[in-house]
Amino acid sequence: MNGPAERPAPDAPRRGRGRPSRREADAGPGAREQILRAARDEFAARGYDKTSVRGIAKAAGVDSALVHHYFGTKDDLFAAAIEVSLGPALAVPAVLEGGPEGVGERLVRYFLSVWENPATRVPLLATLRSALTNEMAAAVLRGFVGRVLLERVAGDLRVSNPKFRAELAASQLVGLAVLRHVVKVEPLASADPEEIVRMVAPTVQRYLTEE
Amino acid sequence: MNGPAERPAPDAPRRGRGRPSRREADAGPGAREQILRAARDEFAARGYDKTSVRGIAKAAGVDSALVHHYFGTKDDLFAAAIEVSLGPALAVPAVLEGGPEGVGERLVRYFLSVWENPATRVPLLATLRSALTNEMAAAVLRGFVGRVLLERVAGDLRVSNPKFRAELAASQLVGLAVLRHVVKVEPLASADPEEIVRMVAPTVQRYLTEE
Repeated sequence: MNGPAERPAPDAPRRGRGRPSRREADAGPGAREQILRAARDEFAARGYDKTSVRGIAKAAGVDSALVHHYFGTKDDLFAAAIEVSLGPALAVPAVLEGGPEGVGERLVRYFLSVWENPATRVPLLATLRSALTNEMAAAVLRGFVGRVLLERVAGDLRVSNPKFRAELAASQLVGLAVLRHVVKVEPLASADPEEIVRMVAPTVQRYLTEE
Repeated sequence: MNGPAERPAPDAPRRGRGRPSRREADAGPGAREQILRAARDEFAARGYDKTSVRGIAKAAGVDSALVHHYFGTKDDLFAAAIEVSLGPALAVPAVLEGGPEGVGERLVRYFLSVWENPATRVPLLATLRSALTNEMAAAVLRGFVGRVLLERVAGDLRVSNPKFRAELAASQLVGLAVLRHVVKVEPLASADPEEIVRMVAPTVQRYLTEE
């Protein structure tokens, strides 16, 4: 790997996963970013099966060869697009700083704000859909959960089985997103976020901090 | 509607939704059941988009016309197949009988047993996948949650906002299924069910019984 060791910012273009970087200077500096954004939007709108590298190239206004040059296969590009969509999760460790008191409430509040905002909800929803229907997407999500949730979050928890605890907290939040934003059951779908915080924060607090 | 008022057992063949029953005696008595089972399996294996009425008819060993005769459109058949897959949820009200004490534990234990058993897990997983990718499936699931969870379960709860509470409990359980059985994050995916019961039962108990 010639790539830098630092994790790039969530919106920055990034290298293909596990392949050596090729000459990257032969297109405009914004081309990778444009391709990545087009990929995220195309996969979100059409799903994995119906999205083609050619369609992404067209949406990004570049040649298909350039897409392959930067990102390799459709699978590599899909993985990169999912990681961009998961950007909001990168803020979770910061949300959890500030100690154990009130951590459940801060996390639930942050999670709800991400899902109330269409700009972050739409790509997250697409990732969730992809992970439920495509083993490749599930593997990307699994890897991301492993790196972000488990290594960064669980490392700070002062309870037994911190990874298990972090995943239980995630399970409550993911289930909330599924029923509120995808299946849209009422009254949950229209419930006041504050009412949800009041009920769900103690759950997350217990998972993350109480034996 | 000429149909009987009673809800059929989960595995029984059932009428098309909202359409008058037609002459039903002109095929073997097992034909409807066979079609329904084939529909459930085909939708589970291929997803909504890639499943055809013709393919279901072939798998059931009947003519496509008979499928249309019994179930109407592909959408009607899809709805009927989802409802069959959701059969295990019909047992939830019985699980909740026996009063508020220990209700969280009984419900989590039942939910885990349904998901550990491939015979019930596979069709449930297919329904969850469908609901996350298809608005028609989401509507069926929404209707089912409305009838089963809300009318039958919430009616017995002695807390404020019983429907909201029942949905919060469902959100925890659905999220657990997603992370454990679909995304398969470790250590949750391999965790001992008893360990999960110990952590999650108090959550469900609180949602369903505590102010």
